[in-house]
Amino acid sequence: MATATVTKGLEGVVAANSGICWIDGYAGVLAYRGIDIHELAQKSTFEETSYLLWYGRLPGRSELKEFSKRLTEARRVPPQIYDLFRALPKSVTPMEALRTAVSALSAYDPDESAVDHDSNLRKSFALTAQMAMLVAAFDRIRKGKKVVEPDPSLPHAANFLWMLHGEKPIPAASNTFDIALILHADHEFNASTFAARVIAGTLSDMHSAITGAIGALKGPLHGGANEAVMRMLFDIAKQGGDPVEYVRSLLAHKKKVFGFGHRVYRTEDPRATHLRRMSEQLSRDSGNTKWYEMSRRIEEFVKNEKKLNANVDFYSASTYTTLGIDLDLFTPIFAVSRIAGWTAHVMEQLGDNRLIRPRAEYTGPEYPVRYVPIEQR
Amino acid sequence: MATATVTKGLEGVVAANSGICWIDGYAGVLAYRGIDIHELAQKSTFEETSYLLWYGRLPGRSELKEFSKRLTEARRVPPQIYDLFRALPKSVTPMEALRTAVSALSAYDPDESAVDHDSNLRKSFALTAQMAMLVAAFDRIRKGKKVVEPDPSLPHAANFLWMLHGEKPIPAASNTFDIALILHADHEFNASTFAARVIAGTLSDMHSAITGAIGALKGPLHGGANEAVMRMLFDIAKQGGDPVEYVRSLLAHKKKVFGFGHRVYRTEDPRATHLRRMSEQLSRDSGNTKWYEMSRRIEEFVKNEKKLNANVDFYSASTYTTLGIDLDLFTPIFAVSRIAGWTAHVMEQLGDNRLIRPRAEYTGPEYPVRYVPIEQR
Repeated sequence: MATATVTKGLEGVVAANSGICWIDGYAGVLAYRGIDIHELAQKSTFEETSYLLWYGRLPGRSELKEFSKRLTEARRVPPQIYDLFRALPKSVTPMEALRTAVSALSAYDPDESAVDHDSNLRKSFALTAQMAMLVAAFDRIRKGKKVVEPDPSLPHAANFLWMLHGEKPIPAASNTFDIALILHADHEFNASTFAARVIAGTLSDMHSAITGAIGALKGPLHGGANEAVMRMLFDIAKQGGDPVEYVRSLLAHKKKVFGFGHRVYRTEDPRATHLRRMSEQLSRDSGNTKWYEMSRRIEEFVKNEKKLNANVDFYSASTYTTLGIDLDLFTPIFAVSRIAGWTAHVMEQLGDNRLIRPRAEYTGPEYPVRYVPIEQR
Repeated sequence: MATATVTKGLEGVVAANSGICWIDGYAGVLAYRGIDIHELAQKSTFEETSYLLWYGRLPGRSELKEFSKRLTEARRVPPQIYDLFRALPKSVTPMEALRTAVSALSAYDPDESAVDHDSNLRKSFALTAQMAMLVAAFDRIRKGKKVVEPDPSLPHAANFLWMLHGEKPIPAASNTFDIALILHADHEFNASTFAARVIAGTLSDMHSAITGAIGALKGPLHGGANEAVMRMLFDIAKQGGDPVEYVRSLLAHKKKVFGFGHRVYRTEDPRATHLRRMSEQLSRDSGNTKWYEMSRRIEEFVKNEKKLNANVDFYSASTYTTLGIDLDLFTPIFAVSRIAGWTAHVMEQLGDNRLIRPRAEYTGPEYPVRYVPIEQR
């Protein structure tokens, strides 16, 4: 113990084997089950990508059909959960509501404590379908609107936009959102996924692991960055000044510019490439190029000034805003996507489980410290 | 990455510095802030021990008085949380209810997203007081009994027994329960505490971290062992056979005997010493020595046969049963104690924070796997 090296934040420490996600930070490569994220973003769907993450390979045509059917049929949330949303104080944030709802959902699971693979697969379908419904329903409820029933004719991404807006989304919107879901679906041992694995490693249940993951994702160092990016863009728009001057001033005051750099990537985050493209396309289609243009100028400046690349969060901000999604739903939407990866990791952890229990390097008062009676203190 | 050594379960990996808990597994030493657990069990109280964990030293007399007053005043649970308990399905387990309630409680916190030290200290008082109230109230509600109001004249341990049973506990019961709370209050980077630190490391809020910790504690490899011990004792009593023969048969069938061995301790778990003593004393006082005698014989047999020592869970089973506590409250009671340690660790993590994000050793299909169009699969 006393001579151990401590790696803060476990940076670079290899915590377990995993066959789900391949990241080469130096080459800027992200791949699910060996397939490059660029190929998946261009050719796959969220359903197919979820299949890939859970089963380890791409599905055949009938397998994908069956998978999509099962995911669609899993779009069921007990009405009591919506009542729970209504009972929470008005000030509750979407992430608190989501975390509480997912925790409560275990009580409606027919076999909540089961951790065998079949049970966990069933729960993965349920939670993936429900996560999207919960986010959409919570937003409707807090706005005093009626919860929209899921539409079984719509795929996962389109159904989310339908349940959120109460209008059938245009194909460009569904397609963009589907790609955003693919891009965020997994990222190896990020903090929320790792939290899920630590929890699952005790043989606790799937809902416990996912509840913990939502809690981790809620943190500004993890899921909150694209929200912070958009707050900055809104602030720039409000002040009416030049975006580059705004960011220059942030840097001069040693303030963090969100949406740049990544612990793992040393080159461009491969997900940023697609989000930039989609943000541009959507902004052209909608005729509102303001956020995209602003983002582009900031990106160029930060890249020149600080040698930092835009990460996944930078262009998802303008993309989601153009899709009509509220700022405080950005992180919940991250969960709508990452649930596919979280559940894949929980299943993988349990396939070859060992309790995750590291040690600490003790830095406190040297043992033994005497217990001094209170009258002598 | 490719040449990294993977330590399954992070066993022996030093994840961070910590000044809270000192464990010497070879010497069988457990100490909080350097003070031996034996001294604390004999001389301290749960309140004083919580002070020690949070502030790093024993309090002076007026400091302890102020601390206890603040903890007593924090005994407030919004009635909506009890309504939430009532709204959950009858089949809900206490750990699911506790996890959901703690998650929901953030919505009533005046500054839920704040992670500065003062806010977290305030939340530590609140959650420590509330955890005990939630467990007691949930048990009353599920039994169709009235929730008992907290009694400000009673210290933490006694107030819990009062709220659980609706009767003023005898001093021996309060004292035993107080010691049990001291013994379980912290244990370095156990899985639930580590989960809490992973979550807090994203700068997520205290309630998220504690919700995740409850989820981890719920797992049978972590918090469930004393419940499993007691189920075994009940089963032995029901079958009416000899305890030693029962356990011999378990071992012969390669089945796990819960309550023995520990990943960290190579000698007797120092907490077991006190729980054995308390179990014996309580059983004498109550005139019901059955569970203690049975435990003693099993302990002796397993020690001789397998060279395994009883751990913290083995005698807590008979102790809690003699205190009139239901089997499925054993793990929630663990949370009632460990909340002191969880909150101490969250505050320590944030005092010198770094996002906890390890890497995986990739074992999946070699990159790049080609995306084969669906018609060609």
